[in-house]
Amino acid sequence: MRVLGIDPGLTRCGVGVVDRTPQGKLSLVDCGVIRTSPESSLEERLLSLEREIVMWIEKVQPDVIAIERVFSQLNVRTAMATGQAAGVAILLAAKSGITLAHHTPSEVKAAVSGSGRADKKQVATMVVRILGLDKAPKPVDTTDALALAICHHWRRSEEHTSELQSRQYLVCRLLLEK
Amino acid sequence: MRVLGIDPGLTRCGVGVVDRTPQGKLSLVDCGVIRTSPESSLEERLLSLEREIVMWIEKVQPDVIAIERVFSQLNVRTAMATGQAAGVAILLAAKSGITLAHHTPSEVKAAVSGSGRADKKQVATMVVRILGLDKAPKPVDTTDALALAICHHWRRSEEHTSELQSRQYLVCRLLLEK
Repeated sequence: MRVLGIDPGLTRCGVGVVDRTPQGKLSLVDCGVIRTSPESSLEERLLSLEREIVMWIEKVQPDVIAIERVFSQLNVRTAMATGQAAGVAILLAAKSGITLAHHTPSEVKAAVSGSGRADKKQVATMVVRILGLDKAPKPVDTTDALALAICHHWRRSEEHTSELQSRQYLVCRLLLEK
Repeated sequence: MRVLGIDPGLTRCGVGVVDRTPQGKLSLVDCGVIRTSPESSLEERLLSLEREIVMWIEKVQPDVIAIERVFSQLNVRTAMATGQAAGVAILLAAKSGITLAHHTPSEVKAAVSGSGRADKKQVATMVVRILGLDKAPKPVDTTDALALAICHHWRRSEEHTSELQSRQYLVCRLLLEK
């Protein structure tokens, strides 16, 4: 199964694609960041974001699109910009007919690090370990999107199997190795 | 010239269409509110909002779409939902090729009432007077959208002519009649 994680943002929108084999192994497919210029008009930025997201969906053909559901933590001005980017991403995902899932930032953090209050650096460290990468992809929006995809794989598998324990074991093992 | 004003919202999105003759007379064309159910999923709500906005654009064929630019005043959770609705509305307006304009709530209030701090009731009262209606259309999201369209007509004409004084005169006259 292939999950496309999207961490919505107007200036930087993180994108991360993670596959999971039937045996449960996760692997990085691709990742990146969609940037739109703060100097462009809002409509140009949303159109550009739309084009890039559609391109990513067509390129990686995901089974599921996981989008971060943000409620709080940001100031209202940032929330409006993030909301506008998220609105466009959710609309495109819905129109593509691909299954859409939402996870909150604390669900994502808890899934990959064992703590819902982990910082971005800790999340990036765990993404590198879980996917067996040499180093963390930059910028941090990219690792956030990958964490979202990992979170979706694990939370989904938890719903269907008792993989919770093995996941927790893996996180503990990785933390001990730190 | 015909302006379609959109007051973005996920639960209630106000829509107001106002024409302006070459002589400067403003008149109501149509107005309404697009509702999406809080019981539906976020993606269903955004898809439904998209359908309705596209229907309005096709139906009234505006020359300009004016969308409220919200930065503050709301709590972060409301701002996210408003942002998502605004993102969809702005994207659709941009894709339609129709000229897009943004006005802040205080610009709209100042245009129709003379005060950037007018409350919603005062705005509704002025919309009724300016457009010569029998009573205020309900809900208030509708009058907000009409005020946005009026604001765009007046601000645009101010840029091209010295109509500012006559507009201020009209507002003063209407306030005195109150």
